[in-house]
Amino acid sequence: MSSSEISAATVGRLPAYLRALIELAGDESATVSSDHLAELVGVNPATVRRDLASLRITGTRGVGYDVKYLVFEISVELGLNQEWPVAVIGAGNLGRALANYAGLTERGFPIRCLFDTDQAKIGTEVAGIPVRHLDDLAGTVAELGIAVGVIATPADGAQEVADALVSAGIGSILNFTAHPIIVPDRVVVRRVDIATELQILSFYQQRGVGTSTGTGVPLEVR
Amino acid sequence: MSSSEISAATVGRLPAYLRALIELAGDESATVSSDHLAELVGVNPATVRRDLASLRITGTRGVGYDVKYLVFEISVELGLNQEWPVAVIGAGNLGRALANYAGLTERGFPIRCLFDTDQAKIGTEVAGIPVRHLDDLAGTVAELGIAVGVIATPADGAQEVADALVSAGIGSILNFTAHPIIVPDRVVVRRVDIATELQILSFYQQRGVGTSTGTGVPLEVR
Repeated sequence: MSSSEISAATVGRLPAYLRALIELAGDESATVSSDHLAELVGVNPATVRRDLASLRITGTRGVGYDVKYLVFEISVELGLNQEWPVAVIGAGNLGRALANYAGLTERGFPIRCLFDTDQAKIGTEVAGIPVRHLDDLAGTVAELGIAVGVIATPADGAQEVADALVSAGIGSILNFTAHPIIVPDRVVVRRVDIATELQILSFYQQRGVGTSTGTGVPLEVR
Repeated sequence: MSSSEISAATVGRLPAYLRALIELAGDESATVSSDHLAELVGVNPATVRRDLASLRITGTRGVGYDVKYLVFEISVELGLNQEWPVAVIGAGNLGRALANYAGLTERGFPIRCLFDTDQAKIGTEVAGIPVRHLDDLAGTVAELGIAVGVIATPADGAQEVADALVSAGIGSILNFTAHPIIVPDRVVVRRVDIATELQILSFYQQRGVGTSTGTGVPLEVR
């Protein structure tokens, strides 16, 4: 299926559906209604039905959706039927926090290497993950089959690191700095900007409007 | 203005507009066209015009929008005409990374206190910010006027911390754990889930579709 048929908003909700469905599967639920799935994820049922329909998944009237089938289909859509080895650039507090977060490996994104330019850190390990010099990036990407680069450096180094990741052949970048990066069209970038998340919180708080959303993606305001 | 007139997707884009506009203001640009602002943020011009119209801001044909006026209006919409003091729960790697991130103070979200339950950390400072015991949360929130709580603990403690934040009167929570939290409707929650961001990257990468988005919010797929 061409991704052009699936909206960015739908893609942004797929991880939340998947997480809810995996919990349902663990609870031995065989089927789920769009109403129940909607409630678990915090969107409305029509959105669930529309999102799943865009993946060409339809439920059975009066029965709902098959949980295991949904888990399988959404996992395949998200590319989770394979591992995506990750390299983290920057072995500071954030890089170390990521290295210590076992949830990434469980979810198919094992961190294989950290990179830094501080000689005192090169050759050490963080949570069993080696720290190498940024100069060794290209060789390591090839050697370890790195698919995703995470930029966890100070903001003023972000573009230089992005250029190095692109040169090394990386196709996906997660940028944790406040600095937007410019990459060729073939490279996929997501940015996690904490100040942006806080600004969205303050928008709602000053209005006294509660809104519980799943994951940095504004799913829907309740 | 009631926030019900402004969609969650629009709210999600306001921080990106603001960041681009602040850069333009720094470059001495007096006006900006919707085309140029759209290009800077990575959305299409019609989206920019629609978003700004929902804030009741209209440009002048052939001239565009007044940059300083836009900065002011969007800042007010986002509640950035005041400070939002932040407490971070969890003084581990992630909490320390946040404490060391000066960008938050610059952008109106100063971290005033860290909380932990590890006695070895209580009474210490991280980047000049005191670490207190979680038992002192309610008193500290009142004392320091804390408006936002950031959950940077292991996932299995997320709900307990959320309950404590709500009890202490916090109205906005940023949850960095993989665990969704349940809060009363009046409390605003955002979650930054790194695995979700990586899953969205893998969706696009397996399709070979490049998409550069601003900030954890899927603005628009190009």
